[in-house]
Parts: sequence; C-alpha cells; structure tokens
Amino acid sequence: MIRLGIYGYGNLGRGIEKAVKLNPDMEIAAVFTRRDPSSVQVACGAPVVSASQVAEWKDKIDVMIICGGSATDLPQQTPELAKLFNVIDSFDTHARIPEHFANVDAAARANGTLGMISVGWDPGLFSLNRAYANAILPNGKDYTFWGKGVSQGHSDAVRRIKGVKNAKQYTIPKEEALAAVRSGSNPELTTRQKHLRECFVVLQEGADAAYVENEIKTMPNYFSDYDTIVHFISEEEFVRDHSGIAHGGFVIRSGSTGDKTHVIEYSLKLDSNPEFTSSVLVAYARASYRLHAEGKTGCLTVFDVAPSYLSPLSGEELRAHML
Amino acid sequence: MIRLGIYGYGNLGRGIEKAVKLNPDMEIAAVFTRRDPSSVQVACGAPVVSASQVAEWKDKIDVMIICGGSATDLPQQTPELAKLFNVIDSFDTHARIPEHFANVDAAARANGTLGMISVGWDPGLFSLNRAYANAILPNGKDYTFWGKGVSQGHSDAVRRIKGVKNAKQYTIPKEEALAAVRSGSNPELTTRQKHLRECFVVLQEGADAAYVENEIKTMPNYFSDYDTIVHFISEEEFVRDHSGIAHGGFVIRSGSTGDKTHVIEYSLKLDSNPEFTSSVLVAYARASYRLHAEGKTGCLTVFDVAPSYLSPLSGEELRAHML
Repeated sequence: MIRLGIYGYGNLGRGIEKAVKLNPDMEIAAVFTRRDPSSVQVACGAPVVSASQVAEWKDKIDVMIICGGSATDLPQQTPELAKLFNVIDSFDTHARIPEHFANVDAAARANGTLGMISVGWDPGLFSLNRAYANAILPNGKDYTFWGKGVSQGHSDAVRRIKGVKNAKQYTIPKEEALAAVRSGSNPELTTRQKHLRECFVVLQEGADAAYVENEIKTMPNYFSDYDTIVHFISEEEFVRDHSGIAHGGFVIRSGSTGDKTHVIEYSLKLDSNPEFTSSVLVAYARASYRLHAEGKTGCLTVFDVAPSYLSPLSGEELRAHML
Repeated sequence: MIRLGIYGYGNLGRGIEKAVKLNPDMEIAAVFTRRDPSSVQVACGAPVVSASQVAEWKDKIDVMIICGGSATDLPQQTPELAKLFNVIDSFDTHARIPEHFANVDAAARANGTLGMISVGWDPGLFSLNRAYANAILPNGKDYTFWGKGVSQGHSDAVRRIKGVKNAKQYTIPKEEALAAVRSGSNPELTTRQKHLRECFVVLQEGADAAYVENEIKTMPNYFSDYDTIVHFISEEEFVRDHSGIAHGGFVIRSGSTGDKTHVIEYSLKLDSNPEFTSSVLVAYARASYRLHAEGKTGCLTVFDVAPSYLSPLSGEELRAHML
C-alpha cells in the first residue's frame, strides 16, 4: 500500500481523493491544512492534520502530493516539504520551472528524497507529447491549442472592470486554425488566428454595457490581440450555465521526412480540469514511490520517468496487454 | 556520433537513411544485406556488407536497427544479432511479443547487450498512449482505430481470388464510431461499426466481376464481418492512384473520475508508414545507445524508456523549452 499525503485541501485535493479511490494500491494517510483542522471535512476519512505538525508524519507518508497554487504556495512549499518527504506538485508557471526545479532538486538531494514537479496536463502530458513528437520528427513545427476551457486569469481581468459583477472567460481554439495545422501545411498562425475569447458577464445594476464591452475588447495583453465575443447574462444564467471547470486542448506536431509529411496529434477533453490533473498526479505518485524505492533522489519531471513506472501492471502484463 | 547499422535494406531501411539525415548526432556505419552487396545501391553512401560478415562489425556499430519482417525474419534475426550488438526492431505480431521478448532478453543478457523490440507506432507510440492513459484513468475504456491506410494482409487476400490481377485494401475508421467514442459515452462497438473496408481491384481479362465482389465480401475473418466497398479500376488508375503507403490511426481512452468524464485522444496521420516507423526507430536507437552506456542490458520495450532518452536535448533544455 502506497501511503499518500495531501497537502492543501481545495479542488485539487478533493480530486486526489477521487483518483485514489480508483487505485487499489494506494491510500490517503492524512490531509494537511493551514486552516483549523476541525473546520475541514474530508471525503476520504483520513485524519486532518495542521500543516504546522507535518514533520511528525515523516515516516508515515510515502509521497506527499502538494496541492497549492503556483504563484506563491508551491515555490515555498515544495522545496520545504522535500526535506521531509518524497513530494510531487503541479507547478505550472512555465517560465519559472528551471528555478523551481533547482530549488526542489537541492532540497531533495540533501535529504535523500525524490521530488517531481510540474506534473499535470500542461505542463505534464502536453509536455510529454511535445518531447516525444520532437524526438521522432526533428524537422517540423509544434502547435499547442488550449480549450475549450475557462481561463482563470482572463476571468479575473474581466471581473476587475468597473461595472462587472461576475464574469467567466472561455478560451476556444479556432476550428480553421486546427484544420490548417492538421493538413500538415505548417502554417504561421498569429495569436488572433489560433484562439477565440468568449466572455460571459454579469453587470452590476446600472452599469454601462457598451463601456464594459469596449474595456474588455481593448484590454492589452489579455484581449486586444484576440477576437473577443462578449455576452451579457443574468446572475441566474451565470450560475446555471457557467459553473463548470471543463478544459482541454491540443498538441500537434507536423513534420516531414524528405518529401513525406506526418502529423502527430494529442488532445484532451476534460469535464473537470482539477480532477484530471489529480489523476495524473496520483499516477506519477506511484512512479515516485517506486523510483525512490530503487534509490533515486533529487528532482525529476515527466521527461525522466519511464511509462512503466506509472502503471500498476507488471512489465509482463503491460507487454501482453498494451504493447 | 552514434554509429548505426541497418540490417536489411527495404522500405524501412531506406526510411532509416532519411531519418538519420535529420539527426546530426548519428551516422550510418554500414548497411547489411542478404543479397549480393554489389547489387545493392544505398542512398547514404555507407558501405554495403554481406549479412554473413556481420560479426566483423561487432565493435564498429553502436546500435543495429533490424529492418526485417515480423513473420519469419525478426524472430530469428533479433535474438541472433543481440549476441553481437545492441539491437532494435519493429516486431509487430502482437500475440507473439512475450515469446520474442524472452528470446531477445536471454540473448542480450548473456552477451551484455541491450535489445529493444516492437518499436514503431503500433506497437510503439500507440502502446505508449494506451499505457499512459490507462494509468491516469484506471476507470475507462480503450479504443484503437486504424487508418485510413493500406492493410497488406487484406490486399494479399484479395489478390489471391481467381480473376484478380492486382488489388489494394484500405482500412477506414468510421466517422460515426469515432464521434461516439469522443463523446465519452463509452459505446460498445462491433467490428462492423468501427471500420470500413474499401478495395480497389484490377481484374484479369475476362474475369467475372460479380464473382470477385462476392468472394471478397463473404471472405471469413478478412471481410465478412465488415461493410466492404469494392471498386473495379483499370491498371492505369491503380498505378496512378494507389501506390501510396500512407497510414495512421487513433488511440482513444475515455474514463471517469466519479461523475466527470475525460477523453484522451492520440492520432497519427502518416504520408509514409515505413518512413514514420523508421523515425521512431531512430529516436529509440538514441535511447538504446545511452541506456547501454549507463550499463543497461537485456530486452526493453517503449514502456521501459523515459522520454528524455529519446531527445538530443539536455534535461535542462527539455525543461526550459518543452515542459
């Protein structure tokens, strides 16, 4: 039985509970929270422990899954907890990965633990597919499309506009751009040609819709480079139709071998972004446990893990049933 | 410089030459043939050597890529050559993989070499995607679709019918089946519902078209369980329109975490089946070279190789650019 810890109990932590239920070789030993533990009800029945007491669990947890945010939680938590545990996180600030890797690697090496960072779908499964496809077709071009799904950052930006009560922004890949990429023609695509942005906005009473729409569409960095559609809806419609956390996307590489063109495409269509990310984390937690048992320490990413380590099946079973 | 050998010079061997051109860290040291070497012209300029003299190249080849057929060549050649070289093949008889693995593993272990078998796209990249997706979504269902592409076995079967001069059979996934699977509804699909078979047939002079069409459509195992379309065409049309070796397919897993459904899809659209397979072999030859340099011996499959081994990029570069 692999004993997992959940550090931070939000959407991701709840997703871990659901994923562990589907993996009979694992159990949740404890859930750690910075809140008052008595105020946190967990679904899995594991003890809820104050984050301040985490060190007492050093020998009772095989892998700690850290479910904090990438902006401020993980850069501090993952290296810190790597001093005590094998750790895994879904750090997703692409530009800061080298720095985060170095910090976790140093802490893990010094303490004989194993860290895995940036495990999820992007970074994570999308990264894997970029790496495989690039190695196989060195002469080609990569395309990543996101969506249809909610962008938290863009939704927040709309909510900050004067007169907006609530808002959700969907990033949507353009069908014609996907079709051009799939044709193998290696098109050069501008930002505007790749994705569409669609906003659903609830106005405050008396707010000026035309002003809000213009503020959205001309917002630099977030919207001005895109075709943006704005819908004004009621609070009731907002709650009814826009509470989902679906997401997904496409990684496509098109490349040639001499005069022949080949297209490799990977796509995800996810009803729940955090539940799927949790499922990826749990599979890699199994790998982490096994690699550490073999003596591996330091920091790894999905690039460093052979796929067999993720599976509960033996090598023999994998070869017989999946090869 | 990684020194590769090509053992067998057909479509696959020629594909290896094209792939190596795109990988500046590799070179082809020699091409081995069972034919008279003076009768074989190779594109890469490497020496052409008689297969009977292969042992003389023991220390001049880092990885031997064996380009024979799965029916009779590879079961004999791969274990035999593993006594002298690190070897890699694209053995694709799924049912006989465990036996082939055992033979190559024994030979490689006894001689301190590394073997990799069943490297290509199915088995190979499709297998990888089945394994990753199953580990991430344990509660789900796998679907593999092939095509649109030529099935050699089915084309051969049609050619054996009395009155048929030439024939090509395309396996085509049905759009409605793909759509049902992508919806996440986990449909039960019959053989007939998944693929369509389309045959292009050149008749011998005076042959009975109705007889041939009936023989095809009612042929057990090959066609009787499928919807089959038969076209009779001229020799000229056959040569003009049906000389391609395009192929591809789809691996889809749809699975749930509680009440949420997720769909993972991987697909390939290949202008040339052998050139793409060769590109996969060459990337895994790089992995083979590196793993052997680290002391790894015995037989491996794609499941046992971390993706970083396939890439010419360093871990640092991979993390900075692909994660």
